[in-house]
Amino acid sequence: MTITKHCMTCQTADRILGDFIGTMAYETSHHRVEKQKLKCGFGQQGVCCRLCSNGPCRITPESQKGVCGADADTIVARNFLRAVSAGSGCYIHIIENAARNLKNIGEKKLPIKSIQTLNRLADIFHIKEEDPHKIAYQIGEAVLKDLYKPSYEKMELIKDLAYGPRLEAWEKLNILPGGAKSEVFDGVVKTSTNLNSDPVNMLLHCLRLGISTGIYGLTLTNLLNDVMLGEPLLRKVAVGLRVIDEDYINIMATGHQHSLFAILEERLAEADVISKAMEAGAKGIRLIGCTCVGQDMQLRGEHNKKVFSGHAGNNFISESVITTGAIDLIVSEFNCSLPGIEPLANEFMVKMYCLDDMAKKVNAEMLPYDFEDDRDICEQIIKASIASYKERRKNVTIHIPRNHGDDDVLTGISEVSLKNFLGGNWKPLIDLIVAGKIKGIAGIVGCSNLTAKGHDVFTVELTKELIKRDIIVLSAGCSSGGLENVGLMSPKASVFAGEQLRAVCESLGIPPVLNFGPCLAIGRLELVAAEIAETLNVDLPQLPLVLSAPQWLEEQALADGSFGLALGLPLHLAIPPFSTGSKLVTQVLTEDMKNLTGGQLILEDDIILAADKLEQIVIEKRKGLGL
Amino acid sequence: MTITKHCMTCQTADRILGDFIGTMAYETSHHRVEKQKLKCGFGQQGVCCRLCSNGPCRITPESQKGVCGADADTIVARNFLRAVSAGSGCYIHIIENAARNLKNIGEKKLPIKSIQTLNRLADIFHIKEEDPHKIAYQIGEAVLKDLYKPSYEKMELIKDLAYGPRLEAWEKLNILPGGAKSEVFDGVVKTSTNLNSDPVNMLLHCLRLGISTGIYGLTLTNLLNDVMLGEPLLRKVAVGLRVIDEDYINIMATGHQHSLFAILEERLAEADVISKAMEAGAKGIRLIGCTCVGQDMQLRGEHNKKVFSGHAGNNFISESVITTGAIDLIVSEFNCSLPGIEPLANEFMVKMYCLDDMAKKVNAEMLPYDFEDDRDICEQIIKASIASYKERRKNVTIHIPRNHGDDDVLTGISEVSLKNFLGGNWKPLIDLIVAGKIKGIAGIVGCSNLTAKGHDVFTVELTKELIKRDIIVLSAGCSSGGLENVGLMSPKASVFAGEQLRAVCESLGIPPVLNFGPCLAIGRLELVAAEIAETLNVDLPQLPLVLSAPQWLEEQALADGSFGLALGLPLHLAIPPFSTGSKLVTQVLTEDMKNLTGGQLILEDDIILAADKLEQIVIEKRKGLGL
Repeated sequence: MTITKHCMTCQTADRILGDFIGTMAYETSHHRVEKQKLKCGFGQQGVCCRLCSNGPCRITPESQKGVCGADADTIVARNFLRAVSAGSGCYIHIIENAARNLKNIGEKKLPIKSIQTLNRLADIFHIKEEDPHKIAYQIGEAVLKDLYKPSYEKMELIKDLAYGPRLEAWEKLNILPGGAKSEVFDGVVKTSTNLNSDPVNMLLHCLRLGISTGIYGLTLTNLLNDVMLGEPLLRKVAVGLRVIDEDYINIMATGHQHSLFAILEERLAEADVISKAMEAGAKGIRLIGCTCVGQDMQLRGEHNKKVFSGHAGNNFISESVITTGAIDLIVSEFNCSLPGIEPLANEFMVKMYCLDDMAKKVNAEMLPYDFEDDRDICEQIIKASIASYKERRKNVTIHIPRNHGDDDVLTGISEVSLKNFLGGNWKPLIDLIVAGKIKGIAGIVGCSNLTAKGHDVFTVELTKELIKRDIIVLSAGCSSGGLENVGLMSPKASVFAGEQLRAVCESLGIPPVLNFGPCLAIGRLELVAAEIAETLNVDLPQLPLVLSAPQWLEEQALADGSFGLALGLPLHLAIPPFSTGSKLVTQVLTEDMKNLTGGQLILEDDIILAADKLEQIVIEKRKGLGL
Repeated sequence: MTITKHCMTCQTADRILGDFIGTMAYETSHHRVEKQKLKCGFGQQGVCCRLCSNGPCRITPESQKGVCGADADTIVARNFLRAVSAGSGCYIHIIENAARNLKNIGEKKLPIKSIQTLNRLADIFHIKEEDPHKIAYQIGEAVLKDLYKPSYEKMELIKDLAYGPRLEAWEKLNILPGGAKSEVFDGVVKTSTNLNSDPVNMLLHCLRLGISTGIYGLTLTNLLNDVMLGEPLLRKVAVGLRVIDEDYINIMATGHQHSLFAILEERLAEADVISKAMEAGAKGIRLIGCTCVGQDMQLRGEHNKKVFSGHAGNNFISESVITTGAIDLIVSEFNCSLPGIEPLANEFMVKMYCLDDMAKKVNAEMLPYDFEDDRDICEQIIKASIASYKERRKNVTIHIPRNHGDDDVLTGISEVSLKNFLGGNWKPLIDLIVAGKIKGIAGIVGCSNLTAKGHDVFTVELTKELIKRDIIVLSAGCSSGGLENVGLMSPKASVFAGEQLRAVCESLGIPPVLNFGPCLAIGRLELVAAEIAETLNVDLPQLPLVLSAPQWLEEQALADGSFGLALGLPLHLAIPPFSTGSKLVTQVLTEDMKNLTGGQLILEDDIILAADKLEQIVIEKRKGLGL
């Protein structure tokens, strides 16, 4: 354990970040954890209801029902479904915007960055068309059509995207989703006052939302982005605060919608912009990645070498990025844009622009992304960043901890680039698993939080435990940000792996923890798993594959998790999703789910015990396959 | 004050109901109020956030921000917008189903009950078509098309339905809603973790939701229902528990979607059904109204005299309806179907059917309403009600408090029937207002709760205070259920009115409190107000018209309230909508709103002071009009 405890800040797996935060004069989320240490037990267990004016009601042994008669099971299920609905809504909003952009690219005949992915999608969706722009338009159109169906009409593309045996299982359970936006809408209405009181109905709705979130938000979004922004290609990069270069005008990006940045990436590399920046005294204008949009920029960084400085880290490093003093402008377009960045942006004279009204930050100026023509907003961002650079640099002190992060991180991993690396098929990986050189696969995914032992602590330590046990780890989401900043995504991290896995890593020159990028790319893990399962002619729950979102933070993560359960996979969380107040909900999620989808929720707040449980499942699944 | 305090039950304005509940051996919501008396102050003020796993966080003087950095303003606004979104979603779901039914009536050439309203709608929407069924189809289709628009495309029908000067005001504020379902979706996404942090942006979104809720859910739904179920016609009826006749097989209806009951109303009146019921020993099968669907059945009761027994009362009487022992079946299809009715239904051997998955009750059997052909589900309900009657009547004791309710209640009031009553135009009413015989109009609307002094206490006492001051009261929602059961909607209630208003009531033979029916009919009040304003050539905020939802209960009521604020009207609530923890939100709702829409939120938990404030506004508005 390499955790440093700072006075008044939470623990962190990232010692250098911890030192930086511990000595700064500004309040961050890391400090506020201490101030919010006293937690409400009712809220934690999910047995508080404040839907109506007879409330808030709380379930206690003496008062086992709310005024309306709702018991703990109903209240917990209602709170949980509402959270999953909101989380699903976030992802569906993201794919909606991606589809609008793709449709526009098709309509306006704008550049397509991956004809290969475009053709792959055309194949999947049976689009018989030669003109790439017409294909792009039709794909965008088909996605939007599905998203806007009513909930009583099933989405169509799902049948082409989902793994066959899963599709069958979902059909049997009657959890194939109707229109994704309506399913979110329904989840919210169901959980309103005196409406649905049936926990099982509500949990099945969560699975339905999990499927639409997973297939559309977490899988298809990536493929649309591949077409628009270029496919991930393997490469080595630097990560962490060290990627910030004060000689440039620096724009920090936060959010999840990479396609809203495409034009900016192009423009910042052009000569007239660079010379304008030079006139202001800088070497150029660069984008600093933070949160998942940074992960996605890093993932596709091969297409954008000149402009993208690198990925600084996950959600809970964003405040520190600002306090380096070297950020001149913030452009945000979705979560995870912490409210905590707002006073720091003011303090460091950093103008904030917000491209998407959904995520309007209180002190940011709205610069609504224009799907018809985004050139104007791009020019305004460029102009404002130069002006900000000129005005603020003389007034702020810059302090970038150059030892933070890592220099040798493998990025650009996708279901395609990884398979190509392995020689064009999954046989090498399967052989390693069969031979026991790789015991199994763990997807360590989702967010970073500050409460499961501290910032990235559970994620990093659980990952170390798993690779030590020869289980290879694939990561996507803010979890990756933490793992790469502490060096676990560098080939040199193979020293932390068990003997067998270490040998595999060393012979292939790869790290034992593979970074698939943003949380949006969780669907890529599923694509890998489905292709392996197909090769073996088994269903997903039979694979020696486990999931953990140890440090889930947001409602989005609960929608991701619902996808994992729908896929029939074991899913570990270190912090319960406000569910333990209901025996029934807990029973369904942790036990009954095995008979429904094959999945199961594992709640375990001890790192070693969590690793034990996940390893045990891997071993059982291996046995099931006769390994 | 005629409030009876029972040991272990909350106060109620309805003495006879209070006696009934006070002596019964079963637990109801009225009992649980006492057990849930200890309230969480953080929840009440809206400064508790449990969106993410770093929480729950609570704002205190020592800790003024959540871990993420969200302050009280952001947290309160987020909670409020999420509640308004959910509430709006409920109404939008209702109109969606009404529109599907109307479309189906058009397609299948099923009976149309009001050609007059159909033609009125055809005029409003510029439909040039002669065939009524084609008109019905086109109206249904146009409504659905609007509801399913994305949020970046404005709804179309709103332009034809909204009052001109309001439409202009909304356009200026940029709060005209896009597709109603997407606006709900957006409200939910905005309020997810680390997304929107701008209270003003979120409150403007509430206004947008208020408009779509009001124009579609609260106005248009009624007109579609008029076409399908018949227009309200003035008549006198009995109300309260007395309407239950144990000689019949009794089906209690709860919810908001009257059009899902249309076929049942028809069938129960047919000879073969009656003879089947008689074979079982009953005189027939009847529907007992409860909650808003009961109000709507009562409103249109002229078309359904044989089958509809009458309206028993509002949400918080539904448990008592079951404990009379005379209910044989419950058919629910939406809120306000309290979870509290479930154990009582079990206790009294009452089978429960649920027609809409949105409101699946845990112990109810799903009998999904079939929009294509609802005959099968209708027959199943009939069969089950007869079987239930046969089985349960020998096992239960029946005790109906026959003195509960009233026998002389005026119902059937709508914007049309009231105007017809006045001679075909609003001049007589306007003249009475100008002459000061009616000082002004108060819409006392919304729910019933158990916490604003007790069940219906604030509603009844405030109403009495207002009519005493010669302010005529129009009501819609569960508030009406309370007001009619205590006799205020009978002409004899004119004795409670001030001298001027009393004379008006007595000369016209009307009560001083007029019942427009379900909460869905709040939009009818707006139609009346707009027609009066148009006659006077003024905008709505200029009228001597105030709103109060003194005992708002549900999230739906907050969406209603947002409509009231968008209309530019003063809106009183006795219990704050979990908003007082934010100075900014409170300031915007109670003060700044006056400059935005002309509306204002008035929070006042004292009955006399609330009446004083509302009367004062009425007097000021009169002055503004030179009266």
